[in-house]
Amino acid sequence: MDIVLIGCGMIGGSMVMDLRHSEEATQVAGIDINEDHLKKSLELNIIDRYAEIEDVIPDAGLVILATPVDVSVELISRILDCTGENTVVMDVGSTKGMICAAVASHRHRQKFVASHPIAGTEDSGPEAAIMGLFKEKIALLCESQRSSENALNRVRDVYSALGSALIEMDAGEHDRHLAYVSHLSHISAFTLGLTVLDIEKNEKHINLLASSGFESTVRLAKSSPEMWGPIFSQNKHDIKTALDEYIRHLTMFRDMIVNDEKDELAAQMLRANDIRRILK
Amino acid sequence: MDIVLIGCGMIGGSMVMDLRHSEEATQVAGIDINEDHLKKSLELNIIDRYAEIEDVIPDAGLVILATPVDVSVELISRILDCTGENTVVMDVGSTKGMICAAVASHRHRQKFVASHPIAGTEDSGPEAAIMGLFKEKIALLCESQRSSENALNRVRDVYSALGSALIEMDAGEHDRHLAYVSHLSHISAFTLGLTVLDIEKNEKHINLLASSGFESTVRLAKSSPEMWGPIFSQNKHDIKTALDEYIRHLTMFRDMIVNDEKDELAAQMLRANDIRRILK
Repeated sequence: MDIVLIGCGMIGGSMVMDLRHSEEATQVAGIDINEDHLKKSLELNIIDRYAEIEDVIPDAGLVILATPVDVSVELISRILDCTGENTVVMDVGSTKGMICAAVASHRHRQKFVASHPIAGTEDSGPEAAIMGLFKEKIALLCESQRSSENALNRVRDVYSALGSALIEMDAGEHDRHLAYVSHLSHISAFTLGLTVLDIEKNEKHINLLASSGFESTVRLAKSSPEMWGPIFSQNKHDIKTALDEYIRHLTMFRDMIVNDEKDELAAQMLRANDIRRILK
Repeated sequence: MDIVLIGCGMIGGSMVMDLRHSEEATQVAGIDINEDHLKKSLELNIIDRYAEIEDVIPDAGLVILATPVDVSVELISRILDCTGENTVVMDVGSTKGMICAAVASHRHRQKFVASHPIAGTEDSGPEAAIMGLFKEKIALLCESQRSSENALNRVRDVYSALGSALIEMDAGEHDRHLAYVSHLSHISAFTLGLTVLDIEKNEKHINLLASSGFESTVRLAKSSPEMWGPIFSQNKHDIKTALDEYIRHLTMFRDMIVNDEKDELAAQMLRANDIRRILK
């Protein structure tokens, strides 16, 4: 199957590496506004050549749209406009409401499958792509009733080759859940990093005193602003609700500490410990 | 050297395991109010026998005080009261101000060394003890000018056997830095866990959608309330300052998202990315 990868970053790159390995991919054409990413993707054998949307999409079997989510929303109509009879388009973005809205009334809506593989690292760019990133992970499909059976089957084959299990979810539900379980974690880490950087002007203390605890809590603060800014922006309503709740819990926790409410504080920590059971 | 371990948990247990391995420890007597921890420590060969403070401390070469920090402050005078001529006492707690204040005017102050190894996991109890936990880590010594040269040398030998590098730090400075670089991370994780538990009543979504990102950000929410409650309480002034700053940064971040201040948001995320360089 001839593939067009739009957005040659960590997610798209990892996906194509696995698809090449499983021989789902024959030729891969890469599109990116970042020329360094294109060059690097070519060097790493992620893509076979550079391309332009209008030149390669009509003959492609699969288009993987793996750009930041604002770019995906901008490009999706133009991509669908030039699909050939046999072309299927999938996106892999972390928000689903806006892309589903953007394609809702497109005449080729049925050729598009909205998906979100729940996998990644804090690294970005094609050099961060890794084999097996999606193995034994979950991927979500949204509004699949609006995709054709043919498009769905092709995308199911892709995730099957990657080793991911598929789950259907309403786009609005997706964005609401992800605001809590993923987007909030990223904001929590970004702001933890900023707080510590602002207060510990003497950097050596951060490095010296950071046990593995701080390192793991702040890890996501290393994530790409280009990727995460548009996610926060597109999902701002659900993120606002999540952040308001988080700030409310933090304020409560602070007051319990300051007011020496030791029993209640211990009870809340014990309740938080339940995360151990749930994540098992 | 005959050792008395007071508090047979993860930190004390790991320490003794390494000291036995390096043959620094001959006999180890264990003291704990939790009988299960004593039994388990005996089974795991962490300790050789149970003991009572007054029976074993006079003849001990080293007392390792590894209880929750409120218990350490309660016990330290009673422990110093019954030290023999050759006994050195070290604590390993995550706060240093209150224990240093508690011993300040004790007639055996010089036999005490206040220390804090920067290592640990989110697990607790003797079954969580592991070999090599302190290897290539930092340990902090506070108010070492108030310890005798003999006591300091013994504690230096201990950390040398564990493979930790020692750094001296003022007790007040210690508590202030740790509030930011460690205690804040724990509170950030505890409250992230609570927020997500409270909102995602349907637990299966947490488990399903938790990519490795959420898991690492929330990991410390699994930590022991018995250990962390007293740390938060003893360090509440510095923790209040840290939490106020964290809440301020979160509020700022939320407002930038809600008000579509995209450039400023990207600039702040880019600034947070500096954590990558600093933690390297």
